[in-house]
Amino acid sequence: MPDLSPAPEGLYKQLQSLIPLTDDDFAAFAVVLQPVQLRKKELLLREGEVCRSVAYVERGCLRYFYNVAGEEHTGQFFFEGDWYTDYDSFLDQKPSAQYIQALEPTQAWLLSRPDLYRLYEERPVFERFGRLMAEQAYRGSKARGAAFLNQTPTERYEQLVRNRPQLVQRVSQRLLASYLGIKPESLSRIRARQ
Amino acid sequence: MPDLSPAPEGLYKQLQSLIPLTDDDFAAFAVVLQPVQLRKKELLLREGEVCRSVAYVERGCLRYFYNVAGEEHTGQFFFEGDWYTDYDSFLDQKPSAQYIQALEPTQAWLLSRPDLYRLYEERPVFERFGRLMAEQAYRGSKARGAAFLNQTPTERYEQLVRNRPQLVQRVSQRLLASYLGIKPESLSRIRARQ
Repeated sequence: MPDLSPAPEGLYKQLQSLIPLTDDDFAAFAVVLQPVQLRKKELLLREGEVCRSVAYVERGCLRYFYNVAGEEHTGQFFFEGDWYTDYDSFLDQKPSAQYIQALEPTQAWLLSRPDLYRLYEERPVFERFGRLMAEQAYRGSKARGAAFLNQTPTERYEQLVRNRPQLVQRVSQRLLASYLGIKPESLSRIRARQ
Repeated sequence: MPDLSPAPEGLYKQLQSLIPLTDDDFAAFAVVLQPVQLRKKELLLREGEVCRSVAYVERGCLRYFYNVAGEEHTGQFFFEGDWYTDYDSFLDQKPSAQYIQALEPTQAWLLSRPDLYRLYEERPVFERFGRLMAEQAYRGSKARGAAFLNQTPTERYEQLVRNRPQLVQRVSQRLLASYLGIKPESLSRIRARQ
């Protein structure tokens, strides 16, 4: 293994598993990563700001949410090893419609848009990384859309318990309800019936 | 412009606008495209089948839908110049959970998974094409998820009329309702109030 510093080992292993990466490629990638430490509840992005980076979660948890008339609607949660960016804002460099927030003390790494796009140009192997990230993001998002289209709230909750038990353990009931698109009282009723 | 045959000119222009493409690259791409003519209502993919291609719509309209207990839930519509594949099935080569159907007489072009992956290997410029397609798919899907999470059916309908008037013109009320996740009667009521 090459000298990864400062990038975490998990990230090196993840990239190695995804793309045919030389140590030199990874060094060029690692050197542009910026570490960021977030306190619990701290915001990484606010509505109206332009999202300038993609974030890799080394430890902790991020979520993104929308503020709809004062009510938080949670889009998704991201844990160790996950990547996230507000693609809408990131790709077009337009103001974001969402917030990104740490739900726990979180260690993340940021890769800026100029650095990522330079990697795409100079080392085409990272185009594949970008493609795989976008495909993965699409699958997650589509599954979420299908859940809203095809499932009742109870079915959405049961699928979550089955497929992402860690999420159900780690996230508050209020946030789970916000993710499922229901009121906390409705989630309590669903849980009481299980 | 090089000899494109048999690929349509619109596709050549689209690719040229997206990636730095040589005529030789496009020729390698065009030669593996397979034309397909679909009659109105004809299925391009059935639930349970493995999705083996990505499809480019030259003329006509495709939609994908889920069959949920005998009821069709429409995921999305695709028109001239759009690409679509069931990524979930295509990427993992697992049985599809959805149907892809022509809503009008449709001329499409199919690019098979082995051919696309060979292009990725042999001509890295197509990795960028793959990345841009996946990013675009993600944006569409995420907007749809956000609409379910943040908007009422009436707001979803109004946004559709504003942003995609052509869709509202070209697609039946029954399918629009199915896309909005509501009953046709509810859509009639919403329209009556406009």
